[in-house]
Amino acid sequence: MNTPDLRQERARLAAYAMDLTGRRGGEVTPEILAAEVGVSRARIEAIFPEESDLFDAVVELWFEPHVAIMEEVLASDLPPNRKFYEFYVRRFRRNRAEFRRDPSAFAVLCELGARRFERVRSFVDLADHYLCELIAEAQAEGHFPGLEIDRALTLINQMTVAYTMPDLLQTVDERLTEDKLAAIVDTLFAGLSATDGGASGVSGLRPA
Amino acid sequence: MNTPDLRQERARLAAYAMDLTGRRGGEVTPEILAAEVGVSRARIEAIFPEESDLFDAVVELWFEPHVAIMEEVLASDLPPNRKFYEFYVRRFRRNRAEFRRDPSAFAVLCELGARRFERVRSFVDLADHYLCELIAEAQAEGHFPGLEIDRALTLINQMTVAYTMPDLLQTVDERLTEDKLAAIVDTLFAGLSATDGGASGVSGLRPA
Repeated sequence: MNTPDLRQERARLAAYAMDLTGRRGGEVTPEILAAEVGVSRARIEAIFPEESDLFDAVVELWFEPHVAIMEEVLASDLPPNRKFYEFYVRRFRRNRAEFRRDPSAFAVLCELGARRFERVRSFVDLADHYLCELIAEAQAEGHFPGLEIDRALTLINQMTVAYTMPDLLQTVDERLTEDKLAAIVDTLFAGLSATDGGASGVSGLRPA
Repeated sequence: MNTPDLRQERARLAAYAMDLTGRRGGEVTPEILAAEVGVSRARIEAIFPEESDLFDAVVELWFEPHVAIMEEVLASDLPPNRKFYEFYVRRFRRNRAEFRRDPSAFAVLCELGARRFERVRSFVDLADHYLCELIAEAQAEGHFPGLEIDRALTLINQMTVAYTMPDLLQTVDERLTEDKLAAIVDTLFAGLSATDGGASGVSGLRPA
């Protein structure tokens, strides 16, 4: 079998497994998948040699549109604040659509992803990587003054977590809206900097 | 039995039930509690007439220190940005201490609270109420210009959710720090307003 065929078959089986995961309410092993789709164990094992390969294929399938969104936004010629907003809102809309299409399947996939976070981490790292590029572009135009990129990254991640962590959709779906996300991005661009505004009250302390 | 005695007994049993919930890994009913502490069913039923009364007593016990923190911060004479920071950081430190003392018990209590959120809602509403007071004080000094209080409330809740939602501790504990929380509060005070900064890109659109 040539490689494109193998890839196509892998993607087809991963899509089936993802759907089946939601319907069964738990992880689908290669054995279960083989029985469900009527494909031989040998065939499944040729495509997913390791137990975790099937899970990885499902994770890839889940994040594929997210990666495409991030790459499209980065390649666009929008100004930095517009890029930030699109970077978040497009992935948020995608998650929301998935959630509303089938809330219980969505919950199962989120829980699995959290439990086997080590298989998901590379996609989280990739999102961080792209966000760092956006931060650098923004800083080149004078935004987020004085902040190290890693510092800006962690602060922005924390202030936008309501729109990136799919679990939040499950509890406060109706409170998450595009216009609030836009207000959050506007707040970041208007207010995020290395300046100590005095909230912690320790800036005036000096060693004795 | 007079009321103070009943209250004391109720609090003692709730503390026992909270501890037992963590150790058992699931909700403790009045029956289970009666068997565990060697108190008669009749006695337990006198103190917790409804099934949900015990759960409510545990929830109260959990939030008691949070309510005390919020009231103390509100009554202080700190400037608004310092109040905001203390309002969040003191409750965050309390949650973090509880989490680190016994992560699995903490996880069980969080999960129960999420599953029976209707019993927890009044405390979430109370926190919103206190936050509205803080927002009003801040606006009286010129912060968050132009925003309706409810709008400021929901935006601030979303931008600080990493420090209020106990679930986050369980996944990114080491990334949540006091100095980042202070930077977030500083960002809110420097940047949050009703001004459309253009992130959503729709401000220029007009009906055709």
